[in-house]
Amino acid sequence: MRVLGVDPGLTRCGVGVVEGVAGRPLTMLGVGVVRTPADAELGHRLVAVEQGIEQWLDEHKPECVAVERVFSQHNVRTVMGTAQASAIATLCAARRGIPVALHTPSEVKAAVTGSGRADKAQVGAMVTRLLRLDAPPKPADAADALALAICHIWRAPAQNRLQQAVAQHAANATKGRTA
Amino acid sequence: MRVLGVDPGLTRCGVGVVEGVAGRPLTMLGVGVVRTPADAELGHRLVAVEQGIEQWLDEHKPECVAVERVFSQHNVRTVMGTAQASAIATLCAARRGIPVALHTPSEVKAAVTGSGRADKAQVGAMVTRLLRLDAPPKPADAADALALAICHIWRAPAQNRLQQAVAQHAANATKGRTA
Repeated sequence: MRVLGVDPGLTRCGVGVVEGVAGRPLTMLGVGVVRTPADAELGHRLVAVEQGIEQWLDEHKPECVAVERVFSQHNVRTVMGTAQASAIATLCAARRGIPVALHTPSEVKAAVTGSGRADKAQVGAMVTRLLRLDAPPKPADAADALALAICHIWRAPAQNRLQQAVAQHAANATKGRTA
Repeated sequence: MRVLGVDPGLTRCGVGVVEGVAGRPLTMLGVGVVRTPADAELGHRLVAVEQGIEQWLDEHKPECVAVERVFSQHNVRTVMGTAQASAIATLCAARRGIPVALHTPSEVKAAVTGSGRADKAQVGAMVTRLLRLDAPPKPADAADALALAICHIWRAPAQNRLQQAVAQHAANATKGRTA
């Protein structure tokens, strides 16, 4: 499974591509940051984020895009930019029919470090170890994007089983009604 | 000046096109709502909003798009959807090189009713009167989109004068340095 992780942001949007399956060593295929100038108009910044994400989708053709689920506990200005960048990434993927999965920051931290309250350094250290890199990816947004992709690869089997169980249950219920 | 007003939202995104200049009677060219099903996936909803906004831009070719500036005082769930729909509308306009103006809800209310704390009914009544309609546009999101467009037409001259003054000041400062 090849996953593009996106840590959304207007000033720095972290992107990272990881390939692998749960239980096997993972491979990093690319990591980077889509940047837009803080003094540019919002519209221009969103167009730049769109172009950046499109390039990553073109180049790596991921089967899934994992985006950080935006929360409100941050300060308002940041949340707006994050929500808007996340909307653009989600739009780009959905237009291509690529499924989009959302994971919360604590789900991502718990997946890669074992603790939902791990700090940036811990996440960076584990991403470096899990992907067998020479040094933690910089900036932190890039490392977070890789952590999102790893989190998705590891959580996907459980999520799929859950979805299948729900679908099976719904199918049985329908059968019950039509019988 | 022809302005597309957008009251952003994922479930109901109000859109309204108004033509005119400050100090003259205004004309409504179109009003409607782009809807997306609340139970659809976020990605599909964003693609549907994009397609809806694109249709309005294609049909009416506005010179400017006025979008409601998103605030945080609403509840969190609503703000996220609003920020995301607003990002899509802003992206669509910016991709075509159409300038995007943001106005706060109280600026819009103050522009059309004289009070920044007017209620929905008052805004609807004034939009009806100013555009010489037979009845207030429904739902309220559609009326709000028209109010945004009206607000922009009325505020634009003052904003342009301000921008020109700032540009003039900057030009003079440069001249002073190079003289």
